[in-house]
Amino acid sequence: MKILLDAFGGDNAPEQVIKGAVDYVSKGGKAEVCLVGMVDVIKAIIEKNGYSDKSLSFMNATEIITCEESPTDAFRKKPDSTITVGMSALKTGEYEAFVSAGSTGAVLTAAIFKAGRLAGVKRPAMGTVMPTISGNPTMFMDCGANADCKPEYLVQFAIMGDAYMKKVYGIKVPKIGLLCNGTEEEKGSQFTHAVYQALKQVDGINFVGNVEGRDILTGEYDVIVTDGFSGNVAVKSIEGAANAIMATLKRNIMASLKAKIGFLFMKKAFKKTVKEMDYNNRGGAVFLGVNGVVVKAHGSSKSTAITAALFQAEEAIKNDVKAEIATRLSDEKLKQIKYE
Amino acid sequence: MKILLDAFGGDNAPEQVIKGAVDYVSKGGKAEVCLVGMVDVIKAIIEKNGYSDKSLSFMNATEIITCEESPTDAFRKKPDSTITVGMSALKTGEYEAFVSAGSTGAVLTAAIFKAGRLAGVKRPAMGTVMPTISGNPTMFMDCGANADCKPEYLVQFAIMGDAYMKKVYGIKVPKIGLLCNGTEEEKGSQFTHAVYQALKQVDGINFVGNVEGRDILTGEYDVIVTDGFSGNVAVKSIEGAANAIMATLKRNIMASLKAKIGFLFMKKAFKKTVKEMDYNNRGGAVFLGVNGVVVKAHGSSKSTAITAALFQAEEAIKNDVKAEIATRLSDEKLKQIKYE
Repeated sequence: MKILLDAFGGDNAPEQVIKGAVDYVSKGGKAEVCLVGMVDVIKAIIEKNGYSDKSLSFMNATEIITCEESPTDAFRKKPDSTITVGMSALKTGEYEAFVSAGSTGAVLTAAIFKAGRLAGVKRPAMGTVMPTISGNPTMFMDCGANADCKPEYLVQFAIMGDAYMKKVYGIKVPKIGLLCNGTEEEKGSQFTHAVYQALKQVDGINFVGNVEGRDILTGEYDVIVTDGFSGNVAVKSIEGAANAIMATLKRNIMASLKAKIGFLFMKKAFKKTVKEMDYNNRGGAVFLGVNGVVVKAHGSSKSTAITAALFQAEEAIKNDVKAEIATRLSDEKLKQIKYE
Repeated sequence: MKILLDAFGGDNAPEQVIKGAVDYVSKGGKAEVCLVGMVDVIKAIIEKNGYSDKSLSFMNATEIITCEESPTDAFRKKPDSTITVGMSALKTGEYEAFVSAGSTGAVLTAAIFKAGRLAGVKRPAMGTVMPTISGNPTMFMDCGANADCKPEYLVQFAIMGDAYMKKVYGIKVPKIGLLCNGTEEEKGSQFTHAVYQALKQVDGINFVGNVEGRDILTGEYDVIVTDGFSGNVAVKSIEGAANAIMATLKRNIMASLKAKIGFLFMKKAFKKTVKEMDYNNRGGAVFLGVNGVVVKAHGSSKSTAITAALFQAEEAIKNDVKAEIATRLSDEKLKQIKYE
């Protein structure tokens, strides 16, 4: 197994990214990690920190795409960027996965134009495994890759999410929900009505109907599908709510001596909660439907998140999610689905 | 001032609703409150609790629409429901506002078919004033009245939200954002691109561009507009995130004796936080664009939320939001906006 790692992606690159790779190896990671970027800089950091370079390899790339740049412009203007070079290497088949904490848009653009889509895939989607109340993982997708979707895309998202949860998490019959503005069948927009009717016709998935925004974090569903616009709105609303609650709680604690004392006793429980709720600790988002495993870690990832993303990529490779998706989407019966 | 109150709407009706009305009067509410519902039952509850009936009046309605019913079906089948009777009374002009904690869909249906839209309004929208980190109120709309929108509707939502925040909150130049999957102008769906270009052409509003889900609770914007599908997804995702964080925190507190002790000291700060973040305590959602003030309190409202909703209705009446919206939307210049 060989995983490409964008050494210069994210706010804490390259130091934390390199540390994440070193930790992945020392924690028993089975794959060889190929660090993509300015090799002299990477090697200097490894040497400075006295890291072992066991199971590490290097690939030179001289340019960096930042999150401030327009993804498509940057992709065009920087052919030697870590993301472009990495995705081109993924295309060759010598490497099975690409991991980056860099620009989401650039990773997606390069994934589509360099690594390419799997045969039969209309649009790759960005899926995030959400932390939930019950502890059961919920794959939420599309989190933002495709702002404009057709019902056909969401049918594929459901099948890809189903394949991922079966293969990587071993869930036998994933429960699949459609994000909507109410749970009843008649709720929704013209778009979700068409998706609902199409999903009912898909063989081999357990489509359970409409779900609401408040169901994303309960753990009751294994896969929740939506278009990339609503998915992005939901994920960022959740992030905003967490920020607001923590900020308000902090203000109220600081306003009272008694509460401050209480906080000292509760600090650990707090930190554990923040860590559990932080989906970044779960690794990263996966781009499903790409010709290779692509994991996008959060831009603010520190070494632990990078290590988690590498293990996540390893799991996806080992369980051959790519082949499963290709097989499932080549099912001739899917062509008979009637779209409104 | 006369406000109609659906005495049988919501999970805690009629007891808590009636108590909410009595408290509103005793706390100095200026309007007469007309309780709509089975008058004998209402009067028995007032008598049993020894409430004063000062500033209260009564209007008989023998049917109740539940949240389990299809709003349009129920509206058709129950012509003597509290919601239908109340909205018909609003139409007459004798009453200025209608407040209900009942079915959102039924309130909206009855608002449109009985009270009617204000002249020039294409679609009434549901707006919620969100609690924010900074404490500044943010009007978020549409929260779910219109799953399918045209760009023209969102232009009206922006103007109605602007009018509300100016009149009720005294904000001189409200900052208006468009909910999107990124802040850059090029981000968004085909739909939000068209809305963006249209909002740039509106005179007399301060449109500041795209905002994200995480901006809904910061308090940085005075009005955030979106379609009713995305708005509902956002509001319910926020609700779900709050539930998940509190549930996880509770689990982590209960797992440690030290944390449990700490919690005893912090209880007040916690309760204050939950209360501050609970948008239900702010009263309710407003239906803007209806011929009269319509406030929809949360279904789980207790008496305090009903009292808050009554004060909210009083404010909207006093500041004549209805007339302001009608004037603003009759501006001839709006007809010159070019839609893509």
